[in-house]
Amino acid sequence: MNKRPLILITNDDGITARGIHCLAEAVRDLGDIIVVAPDGPRSGQSSAITVDSLLRLTPREFGEGIEAYSVNGTPADCVKLAMHALMRERRPDIILAGINHGSNSGNSVNYSGTMGAVIEGCFAGVPSVGYSLLDHSHNADFSFILPMVTEITRKVLSTGLPKDICLNINFPKGIVPKGLKMAAGARGRWTEEYEGYVSPHGKPFYLLTGKYIEENPDDDTTDNYWLSRGWATIVPVRPDQTAFDQIKPLEYLTL
Amino acid sequence: MNKRPLILITNDDGITARGIHCLAEAVRDLGDIIVVAPDGPRSGQSSAITVDSLLRLTPREFGEGIEAYSVNGTPADCVKLAMHALMRERRPDIILAGINHGSNSGNSVNYSGTMGAVIEGCFAGVPSVGYSLLDHSHNADFSFILPMVTEITRKVLSTGLPKDICLNINFPKGIVPKGLKMAAGARGRWTEEYEGYVSPHGKPFYLLTGKYIEENPDDDTTDNYWLSRGWATIVPVRPDQTAFDQIKPLEYLTL
Repeated sequence: MNKRPLILITNDDGITARGIHCLAEAVRDLGDIIVVAPDGPRSGQSSAITVDSLLRLTPREFGEGIEAYSVNGTPADCVKLAMHALMRERRPDIILAGINHGSNSGNSVNYSGTMGAVIEGCFAGVPSVGYSLLDHSHNADFSFILPMVTEITRKVLSTGLPKDICLNINFPKGIVPKGLKMAAGARGRWTEEYEGYVSPHGKPFYLLTGKYIEENPDDDTTDNYWLSRGWATIVPVRPDQTAFDQIKPLEYLTL
Repeated sequence: MNKRPLILITNDDGITARGIHCLAEAVRDLGDIIVVAPDGPRSGQSSAITVDSLLRLTPREFGEGIEAYSVNGTPADCVKLAMHALMRERRPDIILAGINHGSNSGNSVNYSGTMGAVIEGCFAGVPSVGYSLLDHSHNADFSFILPMVTEITRKVLSTGLPKDICLNINFPKGIVPKGLKMAAGARGRWTEEYEGYVSPHGKPFYLLTGKYIEENPDDDTTDNYWLSRGWATIVPVRPDQTAFDQIKPLEYLTL
């Protein structure tokens, strides 16, 4: 029987993105790898799932000794489908998503397809980690951070994670991080979220843009505080959003 | 100056769904209504946003005295675009989503487009409430629950909601609810999530299905417990998923 850990890897930038190849390289020595990733970009897909159209698993070339498939769906679909169709006999020991081209710090965790996959893994009871680099570019340089990715993955494989907790890990751009900090997701809001245009036929349309305004830029407990100072950050994420402390105070709504 | 509250309504079943029309009727006397809803079904879209294709706001007929638009995007897009393009002068006093055709209880809150819109409203600092009926059918009968929808909306308009908290409200099917209970989102998992098929060309494909297995069916603190006994439920939802209590315990990952 095979005792090497089984590592399921996905992302939201699509199976051809540089980040997912770098992630696979970084953890190649830690176990057997299966890649199941979207067939193209799925940024901003959150925990979206495909409810009423057909999903396909297509075998793909990825790298020597790595079994890989693309899916015509979302990152959460990839995790669900991998667990259902590919891993019925042998569950993954860890699920990794990324390395995302661009930040998933602050409240981006809510919109991130990368973190949608991680949360899906967490719901399935598998230790799950999302990795993101604060560099959107297609040719982002992941080399500075790969030793840290290897080391964190090794630790999580060895110790597991608390029940119902997954990790959102972000790395600063273009440097070897000064170190790793545990942090809370920074709070902020977007303004001027769309650019308005007019089509050749005179109809208005909109494209997403916007500026992120940090709520408390000097709060040294947040991921954005440390990322902007050259550190990598780990935010522990609990997918269950029930506000248990508000059940009693809001009881007046039921009367 | 207009002192009537401004009510923004959206959903994930699309602007022609019966549920959103029933919702608008239920709250019509409480304020001025603007409807901004997807141009078709967007179930399972979670907090997905459209990041790289164009969005359009299309004026629609909806009902007398109600300004309405459809959007070629997700429920979260609808809220963002409404706030950006339609409500710059006058912010909504409340955001309502639904009434969803089908349950959003338990961990469905994670996948629900209805709740994606509600969470978007909460991020924008507006009291936001999602309403769902445990009946998927196109012709679901919402009449039993409309007085309760009116009454809850009236209360939230009058008292507001705690900062960073929104509500996920579910109703049992086909009866006047016995009452309203504050509850936690039930925990469970899906099994056998896909049905496998083979295309005419011999290629496999998958469609989402599955059985939901309740983790603690006898736990009387959960929404599913009360819903199955004929009660309506209110789950207070905190969109911020940082697990503050795990920041210290997981510090060993940074060393």
